[in-house]
Amino acid sequence: MNHFLQKNKLKLGVLGGGQLGKMLIQAAIDFDLHVKVLDPNPEAPCRGTAHEFHVGSLQDEASVLSFGEDCDILTIEIEHVNAQALEKLQQMGKWVYPDPKILGMVQDKRQQKAFYAKNQLPTAAFWLVDDSDQLLNFQHKLPLVYKSAYAGYDGKGVKVLPNDFKFDAPLSFPGLVEKKVEIDKELAVIIARNPSGETVAYPPVEMVFHPEGNLVEYLISPPDVEEAIETKANSLAFQLVEKLNFVGLLAVEMFLTKKGEVLINEIAPRPHNSGHHTIRANLTSQFEQHLRAILDLPLGKTELLVQGAMVNILGHPEKSGSPTYKGLEKILKIPGVYIHLYGKAQSRPYRKMGHITILDKERQTLVEKIHLVKNAFQVEVENGR
Amino acid sequence: MNHFLQKNKLKLGVLGGGQLGKMLIQAAIDFDLHVKVLDPNPEAPCRGTAHEFHVGSLQDEASVLSFGEDCDILTIEIEHVNAQALEKLQQMGKWVYPDPKILGMVQDKRQQKAFYAKNQLPTAAFWLVDDSDQLLNFQHKLPLVYKSAYAGYDGKGVKVLPNDFKFDAPLSFPGLVEKKVEIDKELAVIIARNPSGETVAYPPVEMVFHPEGNLVEYLISPPDVEEAIETKANSLAFQLVEKLNFVGLLAVEMFLTKKGEVLINEIAPRPHNSGHHTIRANLTSQFEQHLRAILDLPLGKTELLVQGAMVNILGHPEKSGSPTYKGLEKILKIPGVYIHLYGKAQSRPYRKMGHITILDKERQTLVEKIHLVKNAFQVEVENGR
Repeated sequence: MNHFLQKNKLKLGVLGGGQLGKMLIQAAIDFDLHVKVLDPNPEAPCRGTAHEFHVGSLQDEASVLSFGEDCDILTIEIEHVNAQALEKLQQMGKWVYPDPKILGMVQDKRQQKAFYAKNQLPTAAFWLVDDSDQLLNFQHKLPLVYKSAYAGYDGKGVKVLPNDFKFDAPLSFPGLVEKKVEIDKELAVIIARNPSGETVAYPPVEMVFHPEGNLVEYLISPPDVEEAIETKANSLAFQLVEKLNFVGLLAVEMFLTKKGEVLINEIAPRPHNSGHHTIRANLTSQFEQHLRAILDLPLGKTELLVQGAMVNILGHPEKSGSPTYKGLEKILKIPGVYIHLYGKAQSRPYRKMGHITILDKERQTLVEKIHLVKNAFQVEVENGR
Repeated sequence: MNHFLQKNKLKLGVLGGGQLGKMLIQAAIDFDLHVKVLDPNPEAPCRGTAHEFHVGSLQDEASVLSFGEDCDILTIEIEHVNAQALEKLQQMGKWVYPDPKILGMVQDKRQQKAFYAKNQLPTAAFWLVDDSDQLLNFQHKLPLVYKSAYAGYDGKGVKVLPNDFKFDAPLSFPGLVEKKVEIDKELAVIIARNPSGETVAYPPVEMVFHPEGNLVEYLISPPDVEEAIETKANSLAFQLVEKLNFVGLLAVEMFLTKKGEVLINEIAPRPHNSGHHTIRANLTSQFEQHLRAILDLPLGKTELLVQGAMVNILGHPEKSGSPTYKGLEKILKIPGVYIHLYGKAQSRPYRKMGHITILDKERQTLVEKIHLVKNAFQVEVENGR
């Protein structure tokens, strides 16, 4: 019998109260779940929207343990949480997805890469680096990409080391260096698996990165690649969940190289920025899918109903402060354009403040709308610094 | 400048905390609105989901006034609220949609019918009835339908008076009698208008009523009628919002008679059961559309992305008590099937406990799925009476 049906009004604990948590709550309302959220920031987006919002550390074992004690089921919306506490909650009989052991692996980029290598999953060649002395050994392999083991997401802790790199930049060790591949496109696939083993993948997306912000500026689905590449990307995602024996939602970011290879870049075991378009463009949103997976319910269909794009609303590139939004009327006048504001109290340079979804039957008008929307909508900061 | 842009983090007051309020909150999260809800029932579905949930009377002027004082904008999810209080809040400078004057008219079925007659909008012939003595005057016109002036929705206060009616049934006066028309189908159109005058209508739906419950059992969109009928239904909805100078969302329920006439049955100035499929089947959901309208933002496209159906989940026909739901796995296994549970603490006979949305490209499989779902999913009542 599935988790959902074993008890009325299940209490779902979510570690992290950001936009992913907020959109998960929107989906959880359909299932009448009681959602309890933990976040260190008293002004996090989930405040006011969660049934219960608790302020506390995600890294501290005692904080996570005491938060989870009265939950039936626990999940995350950010990886950087105390996995030991989740393991203890799991031992207490709570349903915890993703598995805390996988979480521990994903939190460490060195372990992540080692996992791909061990399982013969294609990824850029890499070498572990413990300190700055070791790093010098790789001078002959430049250009490289340095990735700090524990540094987080959105490009934090990632640094390109060019041919003329002087080995004097401050880097956070331990980490790894990765061969700098010639990237044609960056792709992502969201895949879900429930405890019964049912697995479904979404059509891939193409992600276009912000030239300065080092995070997704917009994405489009389906991507403009040959069908064989889409099939390859989906097949890698299926191999990953199988090798991981994964339950929940997994976002797989990939490089399509100029040589036509598909390489796994990194994974996130949770709803992901690369799946926000699914709320409106696909038959089942990634947030509902995540819930279906962790509740052990049958998974939803993933097909695109229409072509979709998602443009991230990024904080003002220079100023920080209380945000106001400019251009909302202009963009909502465009057919098939929708706003999702995250309600963050403070804007910071390139911070994700919201996103805009665009739907269109025609590829050309979809792409035109992406550029219209990017230019028409801005985050402004009052009395910003 | 539209309402939304005049202030950051608008506070939206919603009178009524039922399922319509809950689904409105889901949409309001996208716009980062602060949603404050008033409902007399401390266990209403919006509890826990609204940013603020206040327990209090919707009918009492002081209760509604004090609730609305700190809101920027007010709306309703049920018509039976104190319209005088809303008028006072409007005079205080709050944006109140729908207009309290229209609300006053809609609350009184006699005024509603008089409005149609005055504006030459097609509706079944009717006569006002003040008391049981007057009712006797209409014996020669049987069969009739008696409608109490203030009796509410879902068939409450509506009684069919057949040819052999004995004029001894207890009826709530004043009211009206209406000629009993030969109904081929019941249709509904949802239409939205913003303060700038922009107006959009949704494709019509066909509603099929529960033989005992006297409320919608399921609906399907588009309806199986000639295009000329759809056009006529939409045109009546446009005439209505124009004559009413309406702002907000209006649901227009209509009869398609066996002679092929389209007659207005009744209206609801708010999101409506006949629009629940729009959350997943149409380009913009009725709840987002309601918000766009009352915030004076450009309205969203209303086209169906795919054919849609909605099946109401009704309370056990005999027993009342704490509900449990049976058959969730079975229905979610069917492609394109989605659950929306309202979280009502108590099930009562034919009470709306949730709904199921079904999407399909093919009409025939859509209809098959409606019947599969109706049979597979049930509300059970533990220790029910």
